[in-house]
Amino acid sequence: MLNRQIVLAAHPRGVPVPEDFRLVEGTVPEPGPGQMRVRNLYLSLEAAIRSWLDGTANYFEPIAIGGVIRGPSIARVESSRLPGFEPGDLVFGLQHWEDYSLCDADTVLLRKLIPDPKLPLSWYGGALGGSGHTAFVGLHRIGQIQAGDTVLVSAAAGATGSMACQIAKLHGCRVVGVVGNDEKSRLLQQLNVDAVVNYRQEDDLAAALARACPEGVNVYFDNVGGQLLDAALTAMAEGGRIVGCGMISDYNNSANPTPLYNLWQVIERQLTIKGFLLYSYLEDIPAASAQLEDWAREGRIQAIENITEGLPGAGAAYSNMMGGHTMGKNLVRVGEPDDT
Amino acid sequence: MLNRQIVLAAHPRGVPVPEDFRLVEGTVPEPGPGQMRVRNLYLSLEAAIRSWLDGTANYFEPIAIGGVIRGPSIARVESSRLPGFEPGDLVFGLQHWEDYSLCDADTVLLRKLIPDPKLPLSWYGGALGGSGHTAFVGLHRIGQIQAGDTVLVSAAAGATGSMACQIAKLHGCRVVGVVGNDEKSRLLQQLNVDAVVNYRQEDDLAAALARACPEGVNVYFDNVGGQLLDAALTAMAEGGRIVGCGMISDYNNSANPTPLYNLWQVIERQLTIKGFLLYSYLEDIPAASAQLEDWAREGRIQAIENITEGLPGAGAAYSNMMGGHTMGKNLVRVGEPDDT
Repeated sequence: MLNRQIVLAAHPRGVPVPEDFRLVEGTVPEPGPGQMRVRNLYLSLEAAIRSWLDGTANYFEPIAIGGVIRGPSIARVESSRLPGFEPGDLVFGLQHWEDYSLCDADTVLLRKLIPDPKLPLSWYGGALGGSGHTAFVGLHRIGQIQAGDTVLVSAAAGATGSMACQIAKLHGCRVVGVVGNDEKSRLLQQLNVDAVVNYRQEDDLAAALARACPEGVNVYFDNVGGQLLDAALTAMAEGGRIVGCGMISDYNNSANPTPLYNLWQVIERQLTIKGFLLYSYLEDIPAASAQLEDWAREGRIQAIENITEGLPGAGAAYSNMMGGHTMGKNLVRVGEPDDT
Repeated sequence: MLNRQIVLAAHPRGVPVPEDFRLVEGTVPEPGPGQMRVRNLYLSLEAAIRSWLDGTANYFEPIAIGGVIRGPSIARVESSRLPGFEPGDLVFGLQHWEDYSLCDADTVLLRKLIPDPKLPLSWYGGALGGSGHTAFVGLHRIGQIQAGDTVLVSAAAGATGSMACQIAKLHGCRVVGVVGNDEKSRLLQQLNVDAVVNYRQEDDLAAALARACPEGVNVYFDNVGGQLLDAALTAMAEGGRIVGCGMISDYNNSANPTPLYNLWQVIERQLTIKGFLLYSYLEDIPAASAQLEDWAREGRIQAIENITEGLPGAGAAYSNMMGGHTMGKNLVRVGEPDDT
């Protein structure tokens, strides 16, 4: 039996292309003491992975050329020498893009999944997983949303953005989404967002945000950074909070970040900008999970998904996502190991 | 009897020059119901005034050409129709650069001063006034300093900066000050600051900050903004807090703010940037005042002052301050009304 793996073939220049990734075949690993072998079922494609592909360090180690791409997955335990985990258990954690991964108690984000069998398993990789948790923790813990707040969400049709929009609506907020094409605008309308700004159609983004948020933005859930963050600084209400969740506008070219000019607004409007990474708020995840599952069972949230079939397509799927061409949560259904 | 007033003669271009200000003579105003007339004793020169001189609105109204310059003062009540205030009372509040001002219950920052007669009255315009309060509130309420924190302070020889350095030291922090000349460096050494960076002598400011703060900056008390803020973002410790107190690097040219490139650090290092204006934290001032007076009586803080004699010199004094040529708190002792 083989272990298919997607490795880094080349450091991407700008938006990744499928040729930056390569499929290799290795042997299936055997767990040592304290380890377990898991069969990856769904890979969760994440913007954060992009920063690991440049060969420079950030909050995780970079991935070297020839290294297996690191990313979260939903997996099933096959063989375990790790106390507390049994074959057949479903787990979420930071694994690699391969059929089989070894992991242990130190695996980042590792937790047992006990999915509701009435809900699709894939939802636990997005709406009921990291994307949903990030949106929930970011809005509540970091942004401290209150009913009645105007909440601005960037990359609003994305995995995290689409969940942030829905969670803020369920909390009684007025929600304004920012997207980059008409298909995404239509998705947001379907999610009952109160207003949508297509940033590609606006010459004066600050004016467009001010029109969409006439009373000012109380909470800006920022997935994008760059020019949109700079414009949003001018649209904030006094005392507004900016949740720094991601800066995808610069992920494809992190050596040349977009300059920001409007930081003075932080003082003049007494704003708070607070960045966060989900792994620092693990204690908030159980409550977030429970609430999101309840809403999912009640049909009050929609899990927007874009699922690619088969591990070999992971690199192309990732390239497509980082080009901004997809909506909702991007997942790869790994498929069978002999299916290359 | 005349009321000398300093009015705006021209909108400054860049750093103000004495010719941007003009002395005029008016009549002494009579208080109406709910008003009182005060005799200004000390004018408190503040960087924030600069933003009112451009004719564009910010969190206060702009000052028009010919308008009397607005600024805080220490004053003595001469005639009062405002309940609670009697002739002879000393008050602090946002008045104007003139011998006599009218004020009322809505006057911003208005409060009665009950100075310790053993301390110089001028200290209540700086170290024991707005500068000290801003430093105290910014460090504690916004920056949430803890003993052992590394605290970076910019414009560290300035009115607020010199107080922030001393308060953080008294709280058990390691304090690093950033200044722009050797005289200011020597002042900071005299204040027992742990390390000083002269930004004009550093080609690579980020590297200089990293050397001075090897364990990272827990709290950056930022009076400056611009390039120094951008460099400080790369020197922050995980979870660090940036207190947005001022951005004087751009005050003289606010239409062309300095671009910032390192905002990504807000997410990667999970930073908080929080801007504040003292008038939103009035409830914290009594405790701050009491603590600062205690320290002053005990000789544990030094009030660094630069006092200009006579109202006619206010414009030149302000120009000198905004050119970065002074240390500590800049005050104007108004002097006698017939002294033009």
